[in-house]
Amino acid sequence: MQRFALIGAGFIGGVHGANLAAHPDVDLALVFDIDLARATDLAKRHGSRATTDLAEAFDPTAIDAVLIASSTDTHAEHLRTAATAGIPALCEKPIDLDLARAVDVVRFAETRSLRAMVDFNRRFDRDYAELQRVVTSGEIGSVELIQLTSRGPAMPPLEYVAVSGGQMRDQTVHFFDLARWISGLDPESVFATGSTLAEPRLAEYGDVDTSAVTLRLPGGALVQIDCTRRIGYGYDERIEVLGSTGMVEARRQRAGSVSRYSAGRVVDDGLHAGWFERIRGSYRTALDHFVDALENGAAIGPTLAEALKAQAIAEAAARSLTSGRMEPIEYPV
Amino acid sequence: MQRFALIGAGFIGGVHGANLAAHPDVDLALVFDIDLARATDLAKRHGSRATTDLAEAFDPTAIDAVLIASSTDTHAEHLRTAATAGIPALCEKPIDLDLARAVDVVRFAETRSLRAMVDFNRRFDRDYAELQRVVTSGEIGSVELIQLTSRGPAMPPLEYVAVSGGQMRDQTVHFFDLARWISGLDPESVFATGSTLAEPRLAEYGDVDTSAVTLRLPGGALVQIDCTRRIGYGYDERIEVLGSTGMVEARRQRAGSVSRYSAGRVVDDGLHAGWFERIRGSYRTALDHFVDALENGAAIGPTLAEALKAQAIAEAAARSLTSGRMEPIEYPV
Amino acid sequence: MQRFALIGAGFIGGVHGANLAAHPDVDLALVFDIDLARATDLAKRHGSRATTDLAEAFDPTAIDAVLIASSTDTHAEHLRTAATAGIPALCEKPIDLDLARAVDVVRFAETRSLRAMVDFNRRFDRDYAELQRVVTSGEIGSVELIQLTSRGPAMPPLEYVAVSGGQMRDQTVHFFDLARWISGLDPESVFATGSTLAEPRLAEYGDVDTSAVTLRLPGGALVQIDCTRRIGYGYDERIEVLGSTGMVEARRQRAGSVSRYSAGRVVDDGLHAGWFERIRGSYRTALDHFVDALENGAAIGPTLAEALKAQAIAEAAARSLTSGRMEPIEYPV
Amino acid sequence: MQRFALIGAGFIGGVHGANLAAHPDVDLALVFDIDLARATDLAKRHGSRATTDLAEAFDPTAIDAVLIASSTDTHAEHLRTAATAGIPALCEKPIDLDLARAVDVVRFAETRSLRAMVDFNRRFDRDYAELQRVVTSGEIGSVELIQLTSRGPAMPPLEYVAVSGGQMRDQTVHFFDLARWISGLDPESVFATGSTLAEPRLAEYGDVDTSAVTLRLPGGALVQIDCTRRIGYGYDERIEVLGSTGMVEARRQRAGSVSRYSAGRVVDDGLHAGWFERIRGSYRTALDHFVDALENGAAIGPTLAEALKAQAIAEAAARSLTSGRMEPIEYPV
Repeated sequence: MQRFALIGAGFIGGVHGANLAAHPDVDLALVFDIDLARATDLAKRHGSRATTDLAEAFDPTAIDAVLIASSTDTHAEHLRTAATAGIPALCEKPIDLDLARAVDVVRFAETRSLRAMVDFNRRFDRDYAELQRVVTSGEIGSVELIQLTSRGPAMPPLEYVAVSGGQMRDQTVHFFDLARWISGLDPESVFATGSTLAEPRLAEYGDVDTSAVTLRLPGGALVQIDCTRRIGYGYDERIEVLGSTGMVEARRQRAGSVSRYSAGRVVDDGLHAGWFERIRGSYRTALDHFVDALENGAAIGPTLAEALKAQAIAEAAARSLTSGRMEPIEYPV
Repeated sequence: MQRFALIGAGFIGGVHGANLAAHPDVDLALVFDIDLARATDLAKRHGSRATTDLAEAFDPTAIDAVLIASSTDTHAEHLRTAATAGIPALCEKPIDLDLARAVDVVRFAETRSLRAMVDFNRRFDRDYAELQRVVTSGEIGSVELIQLTSRGPAMPPLEYVAVSGGQMRDQTVHFFDLARWISGLDPESVFATGSTLAEPRLAEYGDVDTSAVTLRLPGGALVQIDCTRRIGYGYDERIEVLGSTGMVEARRQRAGSVSRYSAGRVVDDGLHAGWFERIRGSYRTALDHFVDALENGAAIGPTLAEALKAQAIAEAAARSLTSGRMEPIEYPV
Repeated sequence: MQRFALIGAGFIGGVHGANLAAHPDVDLALVFDIDLARATDLAKRHGSRATTDLAEAFDPTAIDAVLIASSTDTHAEHLRTAATAGIPALCEKPIDLDLARAVDVVRFAETRSLRAMVDFNRRFDRDYAELQRVVTSGEIGSVELIQLTSRGPAMPPLEYVAVSGGQMRDQTVHFFDLARWISGLDPESVFATGSTLAEPRLAEYGDVDTSAVTLRLPGGALVQIDCTRRIGYGYDERIEVLGSTGMVEARRQRAGSVSRYSAGRVVDDGLHAGWFERIRGSYRTALDHFVDALENGAAIGPTLAEALKAQAIAEAAARSLTSGRMEPIEYPV
Repeated sequence: MQRFALIGAGFIGGVHGANLAAHPDVDLALVFDIDLARATDLAKRHGSRATTDLAEAFDPTAIDAVLIASSTDTHAEHLRTAATAGIPALCEKPIDLDLARAVDVVRFAETRSLRAMVDFNRRFDRDYAELQRVVTSGEIGSVELIQLTSRGPAMPPLEYVAVSGGQMRDQTVHFFDLARWISGLDPESVFATGSTLAEPRLAEYGDVDTSAVTLRLPGGALVQIDCTRRIGYGYDERIEVLGSTGMVEARRQRAGSVSRYSAGRVVDDGLHAGWFERIRGSYRTALDHFVDALENGAAIGPTLAEALKAQAIAEAAARSLTSGRMEPIEYPV
């Protein structure tokens, strides 16, 4: 039984809280939030205890692991504390929006051998995991081209976007991680171009809402990503991997399986309304993986170093958005 | 090169005429119709010659094969003439709506060793042929259950229905033939029940427009057929065969592959508008088969005897419609 | 907050136990089982209390509702106790395999105005609920034909089958209920024929494993059901409703959305392995409905009377299996 | 009735020959080829006449239109002759691989008001035409992103590739035309990157076999194209257009509609084996369009000027392949 402290009781903290509470090998020992009422609400719902005292959350005599789901600008600090206390951590992405600060804390964590996992939960999505298994097994030969689609249903609020780091660092970064994980390769260079079609005011932040990204992998394989913030038909993700002998696709998912036939057309149930409906299950499987690794002493991942790599791709992509040319990618560690 | 006489220049004669004219191994030598203008129209379109003289059409010195596409009540007579002349025949179904007359001519044809094929063209549909191949190959184990769906887009005119022999003999008979062909077995008994939901006046003819049929095959495998005359969503056919180790399905076909995504739904292209759009291709492949068999001396089929068997099932099904019980099927030859 | 006693801690009791424990408006107050160890195991897992004392479970001062998930032969007795105690009950099907006993307890429950629901949980399946909504809304016109498919992955143990009441009462009965619910009509007559293709020893029990059933509805609409115990390709359910102006289908569901393309073929993820994977979600939505109804005083259903109707259809279908003819259906209440 | 001369009796000439011969409003008057035997073969098959005399083919008193299907390096010359003779022309793409020569002949043709159409036949594909109709109708709002996939089954022979102009000019150019046609806009700039994954020797020709292309449209909409020469799973084309309010997709097409279910998987019929099976029908509909336009005096297109635009995009894309940056597109006319 792993005693967890949950750091952060906002929306995503609530998701993790429910998963922790339902996990047969987890004891949700503590819920920390700087807002006591919020921590208490969540703790009560799951028969846990609330605190605003960080020292409690990182007390290695009472806590076996922390799940960091607080606001983005606190991740690095909590990771540092976890490393100091020697408490394994499952951390929401990103490590820190500032790459230099992120590199700093990762290096520190490495000196302390922190067991940490960044919650790129899409890796644990049933379909993406199966797709990666097919690719890795060699069933489609060697990877030649990857197509990823990431399309959100609605513009996030401008105040969120303003502190998000921009589309590459906030949204596309998940797919940079997936491209690395699926291909098993570190992209060498990236081209990105984007527009503000959904929300013209984004231009004031130097950000885009609609972008097309191309990566080159060692050996010459290519990756295309299309990434948009607001579509009119729900939430749309898909991945397609073309290999030398075949192709494998994780199709866009629909919210139901009902078809209505009338003259000249068939109306099927549409896509999920939002990202959460689509990938909620993968938060649970990611947690399973983390807990299993804790219990069995197995490798934990995606690691902090891997998360840094995805972030490094995002940095180069953001440069390309303004340079209009392919940018080399430099990996910090 | 096979010299063909086409008997009948109506709608289906026109379809056959075009296929004969386009066939590289066929010379459409003659078009017969009792209506000279109609024969001439069709003949001209394909650089052929028209006649109203049956003797010309069945002249074995000038004609290698006949394709009988005239009105239903003349099929038996033309088959008898072909048998007498020793000219191979490809004949539209049915042989004759009256089973006794049909049996008669088939027996006569057998005494003359007539090479004849009844145009149950669905056997030559690309998907149905593949489905039958899968079943026959043993890929799904032994057949346990067959589901067939046959749904037309619109009520045929009452005057047609009045002379059609009724839904079992006119429409369902195609699927009785398919059930035999797919399973390789002669059904032992049949249950049918039906209603007049699309056209209440059908009741005056003792006919139905919506029916559910169940067949029992030797060994206990079952067949279900649903058969309707008028649906609101185009033309719908499908077949599904459940075997002891797997299942194979020839899915309903759509007229196109365009999908339109909007909030909560996906609108795909619908089914074909009518039966002809769905199975037109199979008239050509059926003709290919017949011509190949003529040229190579191979077996020709479905034979007259097989057509009689499908008709015998239809007779028993029609009896069951009124008896409310499973009826044994008696095969005449 | 509704205080529930769970009656029965076997497999399906475990499913209900987890759903009750996770429900925000439910307090799983008590787990009853005749086997104390089993009750204790389940109770512990969810922070509840175990008992072997039925009086505790039906104590109206401590318990607001019971969920009856014990063995089939005890349902009627528990329903009677619930009616006597005035405690609302959610009961697994069937009420009793013996129709007369079932009628008896339903009449008794009616005299006590017992609020009771039989867990025909498929009604609460997301896709079936949507299909029923489409039909009821009139989008496809009036119902003319319903096709239902119910195919299990593997023969249940013979000892289970021996006490199950036979395929019609055990398996097909769910689809009799769905046919009534979707059409809003009580079928008038039924034809059924069946075979023992998967397990020949079933014949000793007068049972079948592969059956084809046809129902006639008032007004002439038809229903076809195919029902098998053992298929080689997982668990397969589907429903299709043909109306006078369109058609609606709840398609067979697959376990994933990954497609693998190679020369000449596309390999998709297959169906769910078993019935539980396919419909587990509907146990939760059925419970939601029951709890909502308790809290809001709304109508509860499917009622005991509705469950009796499905059972009456199964009785007539079982008769037809041996009579070889359409049997009239008599509804007991 | 339009009297056609067919210029070129190779593979694609044979396709056009059959379509011309079957067209009810066309008289295939003449087949020209520099190889008399080849011309004669084709002419015979369709009851036409062969010639090696170009003057005959461009004799305006005997010929109403020419279909230019000869080798690529002769297109420009034949178009010039047609313009001089005042004979409308349907011409296979490209006008000429050398952009300057192509511009020259187009300018000359314009001075003579030549009615000419370049056979970008994909515009006439049933699904692509429907997709374009949906986009143009405004059903999905304004265009924001277009995804095109063009993947061939096998490397063409190196000798072909050597004279093809390279992947951008030979293969991708079709999709440049489609992008313009679907969006109704002339792309402003293009980024392309490519690799030689299927055939390393291509590098000697400065060519690639696997490429990723991005276009920017006026207003900021983006286009992504992936383009490969050799895949292991048949022939694969698809188009997806994301608009501000919805999305429309022309899905990859399969060669059949049969599904085989077994434990854990469903095997469907795969894609077409080659490009010809996929788009053969569009040659016929393109011809229909040209003939209709001739008969009704309607506008003919895609025009020579439009073909030049697609070619200009290909030129800029080819530049980008080596520059590693977005290249502006300059339209010659």
